[in-house]
Amino acid sequence: MPAISPRRLRARIETLARFGALPGGGVTRPCWSPPHEEARAWLLGEIRAAGLEAWVDAAGNVFGAGGVRALAADRPVVLTGSHIDSVPEGGILDGALGVLAGLECLERVSETGLTHRLPLVLGAWSDEEGRYGSLFGSRAFTGRLEIERIPDMAAVDGERLVDAMARAGFDARRAPEARAPEGAVAAYVELHIEQGPRLEEAGIPIGVVDSIVGVRRARVVFTGQADHAGTTPMDRRRDGFLAAADYALRARDLVVRRGGGRTVTNFGVVTVHPGVSNIVPARGELVQELRSPDADVLAGLAMQCESLARRVASRRRVGVEVRPMSATAPAPCAERVQAAIEAACVTVGLASTRLHSAAGHDAQNLAALTDAGMIFIPSRGGRSHRVDETSDWEAIERGANVLFHTLLALAA
Amino acid sequence: MPAISPRRLRARIETLARFGALPGGGVTRPCWSPPHEEARAWLLGEIRAAGLEAWVDAAGNVFGAGGVRALAADRPVVLTGSHIDSVPEGGILDGALGVLAGLECLERVSETGLTHRLPLVLGAWSDEEGRYGSLFGSRAFTGRLEIERIPDMAAVDGERLVDAMARAGFDARRAPEARAPEGAVAAYVELHIEQGPRLEEAGIPIGVVDSIVGVRRARVVFTGQADHAGTTPMDRRRDGFLAAADYALRARDLVVRRGGGRTVTNFGVVTVHPGVSNIVPARGELVQELRSPDADVLAGLAMQCESLARRVASRRRVGVEVRPMSATAPAPCAERVQAAIEAACVTVGLASTRLHSAAGHDAQNLAALTDAGMIFIPSRGGRSHRVDETSDWEAIERGANVLFHTLLALAA
Repeated sequence: MPAISPRRLRARIETLARFGALPGGGVTRPCWSPPHEEARAWLLGEIRAAGLEAWVDAAGNVFGAGGVRALAADRPVVLTGSHIDSVPEGGILDGALGVLAGLECLERVSETGLTHRLPLVLGAWSDEEGRYGSLFGSRAFTGRLEIERIPDMAAVDGERLVDAMARAGFDARRAPEARAPEGAVAAYVELHIEQGPRLEEAGIPIGVVDSIVGVRRARVVFTGQADHAGTTPMDRRRDGFLAAADYALRARDLVVRRGGGRTVTNFGVVTVHPGVSNIVPARGELVQELRSPDADVLAGLAMQCESLARRVASRRRVGVEVRPMSATAPAPCAERVQAAIEAACVTVGLASTRLHSAAGHDAQNLAALTDAGMIFIPSRGGRSHRVDETSDWEAIERGANVLFHTLLALAA
Repeated sequence: MPAISPRRLRARIETLARFGALPGGGVTRPCWSPPHEEARAWLLGEIRAAGLEAWVDAAGNVFGAGGVRALAADRPVVLTGSHIDSVPEGGILDGALGVLAGLECLERVSETGLTHRLPLVLGAWSDEEGRYGSLFGSRAFTGRLEIERIPDMAAVDGERLVDAMARAGFDARRAPEARAPEGAVAAYVELHIEQGPRLEEAGIPIGVVDSIVGVRRARVVFTGQADHAGTTPMDRRRDGFLAAADYALRARDLVVRRGGGRTVTNFGVVTVHPGVSNIVPARGELVQELRSPDADVLAGLAMQCESLARRVASRRRVGVEVRPMSATAPAPCAERVQAAIEAACVTVGLASTRLHSAAGHDAQNLAALTDAGMIFIPSRGGRSHRVDETSDWEAIERGANVLFHTLLALAA
């Protein structure tokens, strides 16, 4: 039975990990940065060395394929891929695994001369981690980029996307030209580490993703009154921070209670004003993230959180404003892709389980364009977006072989 | 019955308010800044124009007196005063009232030829608001300045005290020379706005301060673990921010319940790390301030808060560290000064009540050196450290007349 080369795949993963490598392990390789652009050049070279065609589109997405040199309308291909950018102080597998396993599959198919009806194409999507705008490359590819917002897209440190792309030799305003031609993609499948503990704890080697969570982000701002922290009686204070604290604890409990076990929330950004030890905070601001694979649950909980915020504010005699920042819809994976992955698991002799992806992925954009799916392998300790993110080499080999047989089935 | 000139006092208050004046009212006049140094020059001129001697000590404290040109060992004087620096966007009365009412009293005594046994001296203390170090001038005067810490004293924006003082023509390292000679001060009394709502609400014109709160500041740091905010199950998270939020709400309730009505707490500085919307906060940091006029209550609550922090941390599976930042002891006011103020109220025909000061004042340092006390007048709406901080001109006149008769009694 044909199989991928685990040795070659491991060598490539270890080589890519050198771009933006950190002394203590892990990588910092944000899109358009010098280490990322060096990694892109290396990847293009690897694609060509594998005997494949390589090209880059206007959004900076890298492609590789045997036999075709571009995507074309009504000439459907089967696409696989992921991304080579990383979060700051991220791991060496998030994204890199899907790209390099995809390359390995394409190279192996070409080497073994296996026949398949549809061409196989590899894609490495720009800025999946969203330094300048999340899932940027796959948004451009699926026609979901708002051209008028491009000039304002910027990193949290203020650097603008247009400047970052210009430095890397790209014109950001032309990124929407990366949109895929009509009928160019027959299916998409992406291999990724789970980034959570479920597979490892269940002792199951392969996860078949049935849906990708939608993510809603909102700024929740409680506004009370700045007062002298000594002379203002405690019962007179209208403390914006304590209101925010009260809300965060209650909203967390609400989501746990009513989220059906698949919905999570986080308060990762917290700010108080004026932020001085002897002044009662006039304002407490939270950025709240809500994630769920179920669109109705997500919308319902967002509404319930908002009314909870109003109740907390009114009880504490402060004002509250809930400002939506962004919202992506949950993306169901195609049944036909899930079935192909499960069949591949049977072929390879591996157990699998269906689960949802609690993180966003380029596959959610592709799901709007074509039949899309994802294959998960276990993350050691569930760790991800950390320098010690890892998986076992055997798990990687298993995942790449499942991807290999899934691609062959989808292209047959 | 002799009385101060409300017209002259008001004119001086309005003139001092021009130094560092803000377009919408109020002042920004931090110590050693150009507006503060211009105000100092103006004050020295006013003291001299009132027929008094004027001098400045090594800590930048301004003095004025009739008949004496300096403080001397074993030649006790009765001291009054406050400060002419302000918080950023502060009001025109905080500090200024006590200095200018004191000047008015001394000028009136001199004009009317009223006899008194002890010399009367006016003091305007440097940097009461603590841009570089709180109650700086009165700390130097009372020998409470740690000379070895002076090179490190700096504002939150990083500007060092030594540079700010040098710009104003002072050598910070010589500030400890401002220490008062042994036996030089027989009593100290300071007129101030209450900065809280108690007098206004009780409809009582004069507050006789019986004690000044002690203030403890501590950094409370909860350390959990940074995790992916999508893929980490809710019950696995060790969220430093939610622990801090939980603690803040409970500590606030603890202080209200056990503080005996005169103890307050505030969480004015809140920081989370890494501070990214899609990462579970590894760390939540609070700066907690505790204030009480009762030393035992203050020490007891600080201990109870610390053990509460440990219970919250252990229940939430995070670590906690409580790092003391600063602590001042509550300062009781001298019974003899309180009695003199109450007698002055009877003379002037005003009702008074004893209360504690919930804010820190230079008088707390003077209380370590001599018999000290404070006179409060109502703050409109309890507002202070705000551009709309104010009182009534009639209330100011009443307060200045009580100060006048208190000084005469203490100096008799």
